[in-house]
Amino acid sequence: MSDITTKAVNTIRVLAADVVAKANSGHPGAPMGMAPAAHVLFSQLKTNPKNPEWINRDRFVLSNGHAVALLYVMLHLSGYPISMEDLKQFRQLDSKTPGHPESETVGVDVTTGPLGQGISNAVGLAIAQANFGATYNKPGYTISNNYTYTFFGDGCMMEGVASEAASLAGHLQLGNLIAFYDDNKISIDGSTNMAFTEDVSKRLESYGWEVIEVKDADTDFDALALAIEKAKSNKNQPSCIRMSTTIGYGSLKQGTAGVHGSPLKADDIAQLKEKWGFDPAKSFNVEDDVYDYWKSVAARGEEENRKWDSLFEAYSKEYPKEAEEIKRRVSYKLPQGWEKVLPTYTKDDKPLASRKLSEIVLGKIEESLPELIGGSADLTPSNLTRWGGAVDFQPPQTGLGDYAGRYIRFGVREHGMGAIMNGIAAYGANYKPYGGTFLNFVSYAAGAVRLSALSGHPVIWVATHDSIGLGEDGPTHQPIETLAHFRATPNLMVWRPADGNEVSAAYKVALESLATPSIIALTRQNLPQLENSSIEKATKGGYILNDIDNAKLIIAATGSEVSLAVEAADKLTSEGIPTKVVSVPDFYTFDKQSHEYKMSVFPHGIPVVSLEVMSSFGWSKYAHAHISLDRFGASAPADKLFEKFGFTKDVVADKAKKVVSYYAGKEVLSQLETPF
Amino acid sequence: MSDITTKAVNTIRVLAADVVAKANSGHPGAPMGMAPAAHVLFSQLKTNPKNPEWINRDRFVLSNGHAVALLYVMLHLSGYPISMEDLKQFRQLDSKTPGHPESETVGVDVTTGPLGQGISNAVGLAIAQANFGATYNKPGYTISNNYTYTFFGDGCMMEGVASEAASLAGHLQLGNLIAFYDDNKISIDGSTNMAFTEDVSKRLESYGWEVIEVKDADTDFDALALAIEKAKSNKNQPSCIRMSTTIGYGSLKQGTAGVHGSPLKADDIAQLKEKWGFDPAKSFNVEDDVYDYWKSVAARGEEENRKWDSLFEAYSKEYPKEAEEIKRRVSYKLPQGWEKVLPTYTKDDKPLASRKLSEIVLGKIEESLPELIGGSADLTPSNLTRWGGAVDFQPPQTGLGDYAGRYIRFGVREHGMGAIMNGIAAYGANYKPYGGTFLNFVSYAAGAVRLSALSGHPVIWVATHDSIGLGEDGPTHQPIETLAHFRATPNLMVWRPADGNEVSAAYKVALESLATPSIIALTRQNLPQLENSSIEKATKGGYILNDIDNAKLIIAATGSEVSLAVEAADKLTSEGIPTKVVSVPDFYTFDKQSHEYKMSVFPHGIPVVSLEVMSSFGWSKYAHAHISLDRFGASAPADKLFEKFGFTKDVVADKAKKVVSYYAGKEVLSQLETPF
Repeated sequence: MSDITTKAVNTIRVLAADVVAKANSGHPGAPMGMAPAAHVLFSQLKTNPKNPEWINRDRFVLSNGHAVALLYVMLHLSGYPISMEDLKQFRQLDSKTPGHPESETVGVDVTTGPLGQGISNAVGLAIAQANFGATYNKPGYTISNNYTYTFFGDGCMMEGVASEAASLAGHLQLGNLIAFYDDNKISIDGSTNMAFTEDVSKRLESYGWEVIEVKDADTDFDALALAIEKAKSNKNQPSCIRMSTTIGYGSLKQGTAGVHGSPLKADDIAQLKEKWGFDPAKSFNVEDDVYDYWKSVAARGEEENRKWDSLFEAYSKEYPKEAEEIKRRVSYKLPQGWEKVLPTYTKDDKPLASRKLSEIVLGKIEESLPELIGGSADLTPSNLTRWGGAVDFQPPQTGLGDYAGRYIRFGVREHGMGAIMNGIAAYGANYKPYGGTFLNFVSYAAGAVRLSALSGHPVIWVATHDSIGLGEDGPTHQPIETLAHFRATPNLMVWRPADGNEVSAAYKVALESLATPSIIALTRQNLPQLENSSIEKATKGGYILNDIDNAKLIIAATGSEVSLAVEAADKLTSEGIPTKVVSVPDFYTFDKQSHEYKMSVFPHGIPVVSLEVMSSFGWSKYAHAHISLDRFGASAPADKLFEKFGFTKDVVADKAKKVVSYYAGKEVLSQLETPF
Repeated sequence: MSDITTKAVNTIRVLAADVVAKANSGHPGAPMGMAPAAHVLFSQLKTNPKNPEWINRDRFVLSNGHAVALLYVMLHLSGYPISMEDLKQFRQLDSKTPGHPESETVGVDVTTGPLGQGISNAVGLAIAQANFGATYNKPGYTISNNYTYTFFGDGCMMEGVASEAASLAGHLQLGNLIAFYDDNKISIDGSTNMAFTEDVSKRLESYGWEVIEVKDADTDFDALALAIEKAKSNKNQPSCIRMSTTIGYGSLKQGTAGVHGSPLKADDIAQLKEKWGFDPAKSFNVEDDVYDYWKSVAARGEEENRKWDSLFEAYSKEYPKEAEEIKRRVSYKLPQGWEKVLPTYTKDDKPLASRKLSEIVLGKIEESLPELIGGSADLTPSNLTRWGGAVDFQPPQTGLGDYAGRYIRFGVREHGMGAIMNGIAAYGANYKPYGGTFLNFVSYAAGAVRLSALSGHPVIWVATHDSIGLGEDGPTHQPIETLAHFRATPNLMVWRPADGNEVSAAYKVALESLATPSIIALTRQNLPQLENSSIEKATKGGYILNDIDNAKLIIAATGSEVSLAVEAADKLTSEGIPTKVVSVPDFYTFDKQSHEYKMSVFPHGIPVVSLEVMSSFGWSKYAHAHISLDRFGASAPADKLFEKFGFTKDVVADKAKKVVSYYAGKEVLSQLETPF
């Protein structure tokens, strides 16, 4: 290491301390402890701050996102558009430097903070690279070979989601993944001895990782560099560099929980600066030689990017088809006309479970969409997520598949699957990851789903067995609150298609989405193909299925209840109560339509009753009354359950009549119209 | 092992196959593979089927709950009230034998099925026993010494929640926990090689467990018995008996995924029975010598229960106070007058954060409630969950606490914490577990929260930092959809108290609840004490805070927005729009009140606007318009965020005026009135 190293490392430390102190909020300890690793890693990271979207750049994920002051300091030094002024605005309104890393900030690859997610996203980033490289690299043309690096702490290691993802990473032998474990032995409650005494190295080894120890990562910069070299040379295992660090290194309170989540006091910062030869009177100061050092690092990155550009130019001549595809993908465009293969249905087509209809869609689109990659959390034969002839994404030496394969065996790891999908999407190259499980178990992944929505990763959940219609497995498996949960989440589509056309519509909107994830809820049981449904109508999120004159009632339904609504409406109409049916396959998409359109669907003057075989919670935004299941389900054959809970034509029609009587003579305002 | 053993084991296998085949639904493979372990374990389990609630019985949790046919067969043989007819009703409507174990069935200690939960519940059961024993055992009087046993499979092992709980169990050195790992190498997708190649033994050892291998658990019954003996003798480590089994042992398809989730065909069952010397013409048949064997086992259990009764009688004489407390606890009664210590406040008391008010409650009640046991997922100084002078629940040899301690350092393991709380509650003895984390991260535990509600475990989540009011940590930490998610869940209270009296009310209802869990959402920021609030009013879940004549508007608010509602209402009233404020600390409790009471709170004729700084989703059940935050938050000081998003007196009053104008001259129906 050059002479500048110690100074540069200490610059990171004091700058991070300044950043947190000025905000009077944040976490100084971890940035100060991890400064050496950040220095050594960022010094050799293959990135070009002038081209932050370069597809072959190394990725970096700060899984212990509360250490974000470190990341902002590194981005500032590396030449990303984070100015010293931005650092001063840490954690302030509308700044580029929020309290945890958000991917909107240029240079931040993934939004992190909720513990365990980042390291799991890193597994996804590594999967994406492995797939991208295996798909496009050619002899003499290594178009893709970037590494994914992540920093994580004891908090991440304790989280189950990280356990799931780390186990899968070991199974997949992801040699392109290098994680730094910040072993500082301090958590918020105090010493990790209070709750976390497992043997972390042994655990990671049990997953198939290589663990490289750095005994003094406070000052032994050479050891850190050697560890990275060793990790990079191991092509068949993910690596963990376990580094012993001192939280808040240099602070008077170093090594204690006192520096975890509270700013350093002024006198503490002063002694730090003095001790390390900086002027204690200066804050937010970086000396020229340190800036110069980082300029040379940036120049090297720029040069690497240029070399890659030349390589890609040559590749484009020899492999024009592949190059065009790469260009299309990195511009986030789907192939022209891709949607033409989406199947359509008429009422005479045979009834099918919507999980089966989903399988048909996947089979039709997979060939033209190399960015489609997905799998199931060990429910492949139930979720029907594997198209015929799919190749598994597996280490080639296992004989079970290869890295160009696009079917991922996630194992029984829903939360890990969700976080890995986010990482795959975050890689770029238009990756459209999907993951299958029962709708009820998407909830296991709630932490990751929320981050899909917050970060705008357009991942797709293939969520089958979406109601009591799954039957005998019983209430432990039957969703009740699940749709409400996800409908209440901002920027999240929750599709519940009613037939084949609606399934095609759900996939169409989900795949064309650039920044909104989707959950597609699908049945285990067969559903008839509806009269009057179409892809086009369903892509509006809600539409009138059977228009009818002088309607006295609207039944608004989703998924498996739409055909029931049609039956009940026919009965009511024949009994002198003209009844319309509205299918609402996705609240989010419907809410995005024009007010005029929405009011044409749910106008003033006609009462609306919702029909959905789960919680009524949230339906009042459209409907005046609800036929719903506001209790847990039961274990029995599906038809018995629908009968038990009153989801039959006659019971629905009877309740509907009560709605009509109740509102007779009353002024019926559309629930859609609001005062502001 | 006696001669009867092989026959008895094979009886379990054929009976389980019959049960699944008759239902034509379910999982025969795991029951057939685990039959030997079940036989050996249940033969020595300390239980008394005639007294299934005996507090010192051994607990058994089937974590791979899809193998439930095995459990029903064992309960039938052991003498629990599961008849042969009940076995024939497997998975049928309203039977005692639903598709996964439900604790409503006598003899089922914990509801399981969602993978990873059961083994985590078992950790909670073991914690409860350790605490109960350490609290009440006296020299010569071992009142509590039961073991907790659990069966689990690869699916559980892959789930993150199990990782969290297993790591904590190792840390806590729970020698009373013995888990059987059904290592059958088959999951739903096929061979576990496809997704799960980690070294399970090494991983468990890294957590601090002892792993005992049984190489042939299909036929080596002695090895199983020896393994249990060894596990029981290890008092300082949880033990895992890793048993190699053959899924669907005996079937023509044994050892394949084909026997995982599909019934065996008739000819397959016939050959099974023939092979093992049973009459293939007979189904649901148990021969007399096998019944006799189980009768002798039951007699032994009854005898053990009698001995314990005598011991407890002697104990009652020597330790009458402790004995009375145990009697009170096992009858699920709180101490007379316990609630008198709950603090009350008047408007002149100083503003406090509701997390602080929660800390005060815990400090007041802990002494009289030995059943109160809880902790935090490594956020103690933020959640304020630890009362002054609390002793940590820790292995005594660590010097960090002891097993009589009631403060659990859960580590950063929210999902594990949730599942462990369920296990503690399932132990009985009126245990009232609580767990702290940020409200947003209760979602990490969604799988466990759902099971609290489904199983009726009255656990309490101390969910602080409940809105954008947490400020700088930003949108990754700020709940938006969280309250909607949990309010939509059946049998779940979601308290969001507005001041000190409401915090006391929330704890009062939560602790008095026998079968409904609670989430108590609490602020980081200070809140004023309200005029006119009271514990009594708040225990109704919703009440009029400032009654006012001729009101033209109602503002319905919760938590930190109630005082804002009061400010806005005062302004509106002074400007000629008389405005009532309704505080709705818990939807669930409010919904339970009489229709008359509810209509008195939200009557016809007055428009209601809701005010809550998160998703409006679901509020339409009470309110006609919503002042809400239907987007993700941001990182900034809390006051800046409230301003940015329009949560100020003036903006609220302006929106409220629009509501009044919109409804002027219109018929305003209470949202509470429904046609059926």
